Amino acid sequence: MADFWVTEAMNGFGMTVQVTEELCSKRSEFQKIDVYQTSKLGRMLLLDGIIQLTEFDEFAYHEMLAHIPLFAHENPKRLLVVGGGDGGVLREAGKHPELEVMDICEIDAEVIETAKKFFPNVSCGYDDPRVAVHIADGSEFIKDRPGYYDVIIVDSTDPGGPGAPLFGEQFYRDMKKALRPGGVIATQAESPYLLPDIVQRLYKVSEQVFRSVGYASILVPTYPTGTIGACVAGDRDDIASPARPVPPELAAKLRYYNSKIHEAAFANPSFVKRLFD
Amino acid sequence: MADFWVTEAMNGFGMTVQVTEELCSKRSEFQKIDVYQTSKLGRMLLLDGIIQLTEFDEFAYHEMLAHIPLFAHENPKRLLVVGGGDGGVLREAGKHPELEVMDICEIDAEVIETAKKFFPNVSCGYDDPRVAVHIADGSEFIKDRPGYYDVIIVDSTDPGGPGAPLFGEQFYRDMKKALRPGGVIATQAESPYLLPDIVQRLYKVSEQVFRSVGYASILVPTYPTGTIGACVAGDRDDIASPARPVPPELAAKLRYYNSKIHEAAFANPSFVKRLFD
Repeated sequence: MADFWVTEAMNGFGMTVQVTEELCSKRSEFQKIDVYQTSKLGRMLLLDGIIQLTEFDEFAYHEMLAHIPLFAHENPKRLLVVGGGDGGVLREAGKHPELEVMDICEIDAEVIETAKKFFPNVSCGYDDPRVAVHIADGSEFIKDRPGYYDVIIVDSTDPGGPGAPLFGEQFYRDMKKALRPGGVIATQAESPYLLPDIVQRLYKVSEQVFRSVGYASILVPTYPTGTIGACVAGDRDDIASPARPVPPELAAKLRYYNSKIHEAAFANPSFVKRLFD
Repeated sequence: MADFWVTEAMNGFGMTVQVTEELCSKRSEFQKIDVYQTSKLGRMLLLDGIIQLTEFDEFAYHEMLAHIPLFAHENPKRLLVVGGGDGGVLREAGKHPELEVMDICEIDAEVIETAKKFFPNVSCGYDDPRVAVHIADGSEFIKDRPGYYDVIIVDSTDPGGPGAPLFGEQFYRDMKKALRPGGVIATQAESPYLLPDIVQRLYKVSEQVFRSVGYASILVPTYPTGTIGACVAGDRDDIASPARPVPPELAAKLRYYNSKIHEAAFANPSFVKRLFD
């Protein structure tokens, strides 16, 4: 079979990835799910034509989205992951022995099944005995657990897909209610080069709901513009620095996250800072 | 004329940009030069098929490559730019009133002419009366000015093109000789996701030649992987922090560089840090 290129383009530019084989193409109740074998980036997952991860660089996104909020919390015991059906955030969160509860609320069971079949090094996050899977709409699920979680991580698709309710102000207010005192959230918050209006809106909404908010950027080559942000918020004074040291044995295992990059990720270029004024 | 897409691909993935018009396509003594009107990113310059800049995001690269070494120096009087024929680094450097000498050594006069014709907002860097243009091979030119410059900025193409000599160890030794005491260099140092071996080599060479070295990453969506690095080196103890404050009236004009992002750019992800051990 000849190689071909899969392109994700928007606003006049995009990413293109060389593919050697289509491994899966199906339509779930919520979205189109495609898995490709790429020539150089390992396997790649797309939802509705949008690249969700490649084996090449998923570590960058998953490590930062998980470890920033978990290390920004003094002593997290109960975690909720909203979305994140591939299991990558669970895999990283599982490296925190202090966690007692690891709930995940994913709307699309077929994403989980697909990840378990084609991405064993990502979906291994589900092997952790602390994990409880809830197949539900995260924007509804979160209303049922008032004052329960220490950390909530939202690993969503873009606002156009089934993740749309996760970008609304009500969801941020509901997350706040679902947290115990001292709680921290981190949400997938798009690229400031590509979607500055969404970055700005999520930041402003978070600012209204939480005492502190920060926008952390993460270098992920296969996302459009090569960067994506996490909106991190909570009721600490300084959400942008780790609340406790990173154990050396964990630091040695990580490929992206470290305590310096935790802080540095929140130092935004001036054009991004101005979105938040 | 129908739109088409111009793609720069390498190692199984790449960038693709929607183009509405080809404005210039010629071959100089050194390389192929193309200028396109894009649909959303302004005009775009390619050398030998490699994207050099788009009007959309050139500010990120030019601001960081110029202001990091200039603010890492206590009081820079004499600057040399090697390469950088488009004028973008000169434009940014010109915002430093303390500079008395602004030499540029570009090998290809046709790059300068093309920039002056098609990129007035970039090539305006040449309007500064302090600028002196030298059409020559930077790796030779630099040998003629021992102990002369305070800051040298190397804005080169990739190692495959006419910029190849600028990636060798001898050039770093020659730059060191061309500096006055306290001098600082910054060189285009590629993406650690795409070319980790080159990033590593430039860092190690710099470490042998200079007292301090750091690798600063810059978010530039239209470069492959969306990030590029500057290798910054000098004989200060801490090359990764500004040596003096950024004047507020300059800070207000900049879109990317600020004193916090200066320091933060040097906090590398763990997989990048390990290249330097």
